[in-house]
Amino acid sequence: MSYSSISHLFCPKCNSTYDDHKVNQLCSCGSPLLVEYDLDSLKGKERNEVIDTERHDLWRYHQLLPVREPEHVVSLGEGLTPVIPMGSMGEKMGIPQLFMKDEGMVPTGSFKARGAAVGVSKAKELGIKALAMPTNGNAGAAWSLYSARAGIDSYIIMPVDAPPITRKEVAISGSHLYLVNGLISDAGKIVGELVKERGFYDASTLKEPYRIEGKKTMGYELLEQFDNNIPDVILYPTGGGVGLIGIYKAIKEWQELGWIKGDKIPRLVAVQAEGCAPIVKAWEERKTESVFWENSETAAFGINVPKAIGDFLVLDAIYKTDGCAIAVSEDEIKQAHSDVAHLEGTFICPEGAATFAAAKTLREKNWIKEGESVVCLNTGQGIKYPEMVEIDPTVLEKGDSAGKIDVSTVLK
Amino acid sequence: MSYSSISHLFCPKCNSTYDDHKVNQLCSCGSPLLVEYDLDSLKGKERNEVIDTERHDLWRYHQLLPVREPEHVVSLGEGLTPVIPMGSMGEKMGIPQLFMKDEGMVPTGSFKARGAAVGVSKAKELGIKALAMPTNGNAGAAWSLYSARAGIDSYIIMPVDAPPITRKEVAISGSHLYLVNGLISDAGKIVGELVKERGFYDASTLKEPYRIEGKKTMGYELLEQFDNNIPDVILYPTGGGVGLIGIYKAIKEWQELGWIKGDKIPRLVAVQAEGCAPIVKAWEERKTESVFWENSETAAFGINVPKAIGDFLVLDAIYKTDGCAIAVSEDEIKQAHSDVAHLEGTFICPEGAATFAAAKTLREKNWIKEGESVVCLNTGQGIKYPEMVEIDPTVLEKGDSAGKIDVSTVLK
Repeated sequence: MSYSSISHLFCPKCNSTYDDHKVNQLCSCGSPLLVEYDLDSLKGKERNEVIDTERHDLWRYHQLLPVREPEHVVSLGEGLTPVIPMGSMGEKMGIPQLFMKDEGMVPTGSFKARGAAVGVSKAKELGIKALAMPTNGNAGAAWSLYSARAGIDSYIIMPVDAPPITRKEVAISGSHLYLVNGLISDAGKIVGELVKERGFYDASTLKEPYRIEGKKTMGYELLEQFDNNIPDVILYPTGGGVGLIGIYKAIKEWQELGWIKGDKIPRLVAVQAEGCAPIVKAWEERKTESVFWENSETAAFGINVPKAIGDFLVLDAIYKTDGCAIAVSEDEIKQAHSDVAHLEGTFICPEGAATFAAAKTLREKNWIKEGESVVCLNTGQGIKYPEMVEIDPTVLEKGDSAGKIDVSTVLK
Repeated sequence: MSYSSISHLFCPKCNSTYDDHKVNQLCSCGSPLLVEYDLDSLKGKERNEVIDTERHDLWRYHQLLPVREPEHVVSLGEGLTPVIPMGSMGEKMGIPQLFMKDEGMVPTGSFKARGAAVGVSKAKELGIKALAMPTNGNAGAAWSLYSARAGIDSYIIMPVDAPPITRKEVAISGSHLYLVNGLISDAGKIVGELVKERGFYDASTLKEPYRIEGKKTMGYELLEQFDNNIPDVILYPTGGGVGLIGIYKAIKEWQELGWIKGDKIPRLVAVQAEGCAPIVKAWEERKTESVFWENSETAAFGINVPKAIGDFLVLDAIYKTDGCAIAVSEDEIKQAHSDVAHLEGTFICPEGAATFAAAKTLREKNWIKEGESVVCLNTGQGIKYPEMVEIDPTVLEKGDSAGKIDVSTVLK
């Protein structure tokens, strides 16, 4: 059996097909391209005959990933992140079956590593020498580090307001880092021009077809980790929405392979911030595409995406799974961020916190029903966002006595 | 079969034994206590009969961990971190078989999570309500967050120079955070007084016997991951040295169980910084204990430990495995830190970088022989040390043309 069952690329808008042996970006119609596998060749096989269960990272699914030759795999051990029971938080929210898939536990500390691992591996397979991308920070960090490992030159442009640590990650990789006084959409325009003028590979969200294949492995893992108890609801913080599109693609592929028992699939929820909620607006208006969100703003910087190129795919996934889209306030994000740390001992990113805030509201509205199982997707480590935590600790001097330590609250 | 084969605690200095059902700190003789298991009850069993291989974290080894009841396990999915081939770096260093075990991929972004997971779980089992500890930052972050999850109150004291992000981690957990104008040894004195006066559980390094049990799982994992190809050398950045002691304990336990094929065991190397090298000095003088290192200083803050309480155990592990101890300079740390990012795409912590610098020197001295396989242990994520990377990126304005981007180096 070959290492990958990839068949070709196809356009979900105009149905054109493309050869994955060649470099492809968007379809000539302007839509992102998606990867199609020869699933027929795998039908009749048990899941664990196809999954390389000895491998404790996302490459266990290599048969359903686009890299044709194992020697092109560029890996830092990404994937197979834990699903953590959030019982205390769940109790507070009226969702006893609350879980968090923790994507902080990957290289570069954010889920962007999945897309970068698969995207850069396929770029290496295609012989790419240099790539460029706009980013809200974490994707740039991941792509620049994986590119360094692959020996690919990278040009990364991010807003000046992107998390400062991500600049350091890009810089130490040896990548070419530029900041822009603006949003990711402004960075995108400059990258577009650079790609056109220099012939660089465009690694922008969904402008290359393989990042989503890395992201979809979050879906495979959830299906494997929950096995016969597929969760009722999965909440995903939605900027570009690639993860949500990917999870839906994962579900559809395994459904076709007969690897999901029963008819139930999870309802997918796109979570956005009130200061940048184009998908929510489109969903509320039952539209199939979103409109550019003017003057967007949120502390959950990763979901500050005013117009996602894959918006129609995100909305399709929501409609097809009976999901929904919901916006949360900055205060709700901050409260959830603090609550999960106090109650569960998890220091998560603000984007992840937004999903807990959303779950709380959806439970109050009874959109999440009593007894349903719910997965919140935390997309990165809290340590990448130190400014979310304000502190003013007491400073002791050498030789100070323990009497200076306030123990008045310990007997609570 | 019970969940754990723990038998009792014993003192490696005076051979006294203690009951693990009761709260114990140091032996009455002043030595740390270690955990003994009823290995006889497991003899004759295959490794995979005892390991819970379905579990993708360190609790797969629950039979050889000290927690007696599974309901006391406090877990965030820690462990089973990847072993990453470092071929490009290895080639540069003349060590083609160079690997890195990446402990950045755990909750709280440092290997301290292992000790905290097991230590806090056992504290919960013992009914502990409040604990206190001095820390160089990362241990405090891990213990405070796991304590929050366990519902245990924690008091954490760290030097003002500890990595700033670790303050945030401690604070968001709801722990009581104090800074001290001094070193971890100064923090330790205040904690000692607090413990004495208030009866808190002392979670200082090796003053409770269970942290080391969490750390030893790094050894189990390496033995499992390398299987029949046990590496020749393992390099470990050594502050308190608990990980090194733990890895040696893991090797001895599996040897006794007959789970290591052949007689070969890895040579263990304690890596320190030139500005704080008490173990190196003791090893060079063939001593069995170290002397307090005055005016210690290094950017690799986690190994700024002037006198480790378990120094005699670290030295014993080095002597018994034919290992060594070596100090590296700040410049060498910085160079290795940059090299692994450029060549391998890994953004590691300075303590981890020290092990690569040490491997390079040991290869040059031919202490590491041609063709030997070598594992460097990276103990945490580079993102926790942003000050290690100095940058000055160009800032573009909205609407700037791609002509502002310097592509002069791309055709290299």
